[in-house]
Amino acid sequence: MRVGVTDTPSENWFHMWAAPSYSSIDEDFAAIAELGVDHVRLFPLWPLLQPNAGWIDPKAVDRVLDVVELAKTHGLDAEVDVLQGHLSSFDFLPSWVSTWHEANIFTEPRVVEAEERLIRLLARELSGVEGAFGLGLGNEIVQFSAARNPHAYPLTQAQAATWTQRLLSVAKEQWPDGIHSISFDEDVWFDDFMPFTPELAASAGDVTTVHSWIFGKVGEHYGDDYDALVLFARYLVELANAWGNRPIWLQEIGAPVPLISPERSAGFLTDVLGTLASAPNLEAVTWWCSHDVNRKFADFPELEYSLGLLDSQNRVKPAGKALKRAIGAFVEKPAGVRGALSFDGTRRSQTAPGGELFAAWLEAAKEGQMLALEESI
Amino acid sequence: MRVGVTDTPSENWFHMWAAPSYSSIDEDFAAIAELGVDHVRLFPLWPLLQPNAGWIDPKAVDRVLDVVELAKTHGLDAEVDVLQGHLSSFDFLPSWVSTWHEANIFTEPRVVEAEERLIRLLARELSGVEGAFGLGLGNEIVQFSAARNPHAYPLTQAQAATWTQRLLSVAKEQWPDGIHSISFDEDVWFDDFMPFTPELAASAGDVTTVHSWIFGKVGEHYGDDYDALVLFARYLVELANAWGNRPIWLQEIGAPVPLISPERSAGFLTDVLGTLASAPNLEAVTWWCSHDVNRKFADFPELEYSLGLLDSQNRVKPAGKALKRAIGAFVEKPAGVRGALSFDGTRRSQTAPGGELFAAWLEAAKEGQMLALEESI
Repeated sequence: MRVGVTDTPSENWFHMWAAPSYSSIDEDFAAIAELGVDHVRLFPLWPLLQPNAGWIDPKAVDRVLDVVELAKTHGLDAEVDVLQGHLSSFDFLPSWVSTWHEANIFTEPRVVEAEERLIRLLARELSGVEGAFGLGLGNEIVQFSAARNPHAYPLTQAQAATWTQRLLSVAKEQWPDGIHSISFDEDVWFDDFMPFTPELAASAGDVTTVHSWIFGKVGEHYGDDYDALVLFARYLVELANAWGNRPIWLQEIGAPVPLISPERSAGFLTDVLGTLASAPNLEAVTWWCSHDVNRKFADFPELEYSLGLLDSQNRVKPAGKALKRAIGAFVEKPAGVRGALSFDGTRRSQTAPGGELFAAWLEAAKEGQMLALEESI
Repeated sequence: MRVGVTDTPSENWFHMWAAPSYSSIDEDFAAIAELGVDHVRLFPLWPLLQPNAGWIDPKAVDRVLDVVELAKTHGLDAEVDVLQGHLSSFDFLPSWVSTWHEANIFTEPRVVEAEERLIRLLARELSGVEGAFGLGLGNEIVQFSAARNPHAYPLTQAQAATWTQRLLSVAKEQWPDGIHSISFDEDVWFDDFMPFTPELAASAGDVTTVHSWIFGKVGEHYGDDYDALVLFARYLVELANAWGNRPIWLQEIGAPVPLISPERSAGFLTDVLGTLASAPNLEAVTWWCSHDVNRKFADFPELEYSLGLLDSQNRVKPAGKALKRAIGAFVEKPAGVRGALSFDGTRRSQTAPGGELFAAWLEAAKEGQMLALEESI
């Protein structure tokens, strides 16, 4: 199993993409590599890459390639998410889809054509860069179609699938041996009305991605139950596996306050990775994140300031040390013969924490039985 | 009277601020200086200057100072508008006032405090740069409070005045001898419901700014009447003068298609400047704009692609030649003793083209009598 981290640059967070300080990024990657991980996720900002629908900034593209190459000098492979889009509560949409140029980013032809041009260019350029291993369409970009979004784009399931397949096809065409994916928050698995569906999540692209954040439904229903919080990532992996038997990438997992206090984050990390040793089809885990957000940046959700494995001076935090130890000690185990719980795939919401399926799975897991999940239709 | 142009960089429009090519900007300024003008307006993008409420990017600030200095090497003084904001139909609002972080940019305390920090820093830095002559709060930023805006921030007249005075005071405090201003589209003069008022426009800051665009109400009512289109800027200057007897800056004026065809733009420019020779209190005119928008940029209103005095290869267009000739020939004339038309200041909309006041003023102006306007309360 590969283990990596999401790169949250110590100097100026993702705003660094406007004018990267390569010496600072170099130091970050050196510190990240010291954690024993083998890959990073990188998040350039969409409005900087493509300031106008008709123009991709070649300097901004060069910066992405430069940063990927720099990562490789530290032995770190890199995945690049393209359409950011959305990061840590902030939306970064280009001016040509907003206000006077308001357009649905999933369905408006001029916008989707522009997105396709950007994906095509980055896939082509990155395919030739050592260490680059794949593209993501955009970090949790699907949240722009969620009803809870303050500015949701209306979308049908068919439209969501069309958009996803179209852009992933472009990436694959330009970069056949890249591992390309689309990522989701938990709505895809749990929200009956999310137009991006579990079937799509478990079939589009080369790998099924899972983002496990305990501040979602599991925190809501099991906030005081440490074991439930620890086991949630494994549950999501089982659920993803039930929806599609193929490689799974636990692409986001972290230890957010207040559910996990800073003192407990190292233990939480160790315990979570312990639950994953026998997870079916799980090929990679990417911890969120490399660096704490610097307190000079305002308006982030409180939890974002302490999610780092490193602080903003590149000092290793206890969770960073725990990750290094856990990687050293990690031994994959076969899942073996085991029982399974079935669920009704037509009602996603019933698979969420708070429902009977999760309760039953959790009860068995606490007793050491990691049950499989299976969709019964 | 000073004459200048708005700088619309030939290479990458205002997106150049992310990574300026100084050699290209140098060539632009050389070509602009050749037109015989003495100043430029500069529009950095707000999200690049201040990517986070708590952090102003020092590299982005340095770029502004560098560009101002570069302008001065060509004899061009520079005004810098800070909160862009809005340019040529595109909105550039930072992520920390949008969607999940939605906030009224005129009234939300955390946002106004951040704006104040940016104005303070730029005023302080620019005050020491030779050639810098003043700050604008943000190019037509008031349009974010207009009812026709797809995402208007609700605002009272008192709130509009408070915001304006607060930010202009900060600029003045840091840079006492700078000429600081706020700018408006014609709504301020003509829309009864625009919270930024003519009284405010004609009293806040060091100069009253006027933006004269014939695609507004005059085009709507007098689109076929060339003389009306030519005389509109002078009318607005008279109106501004009626609202406040102090220096006036005709800060935006241009020759947009289809009202003015490309073949007629040079004549239009010459004719407009001719009407301004005796305009009261008029101290400066800034033509919009230096360079055509390159066709590689999509989604601009059609008129934006041909407003330049120079094309995107820095070749002088006929309007550019006309400007140079007009500057050489320009002689200010005293307004002399003249008649005046009065209007009811409580009903701004009655002063707009389409109403009796404009019709009467236009009729006299066509006969060579440039009547003054006066508010009767």
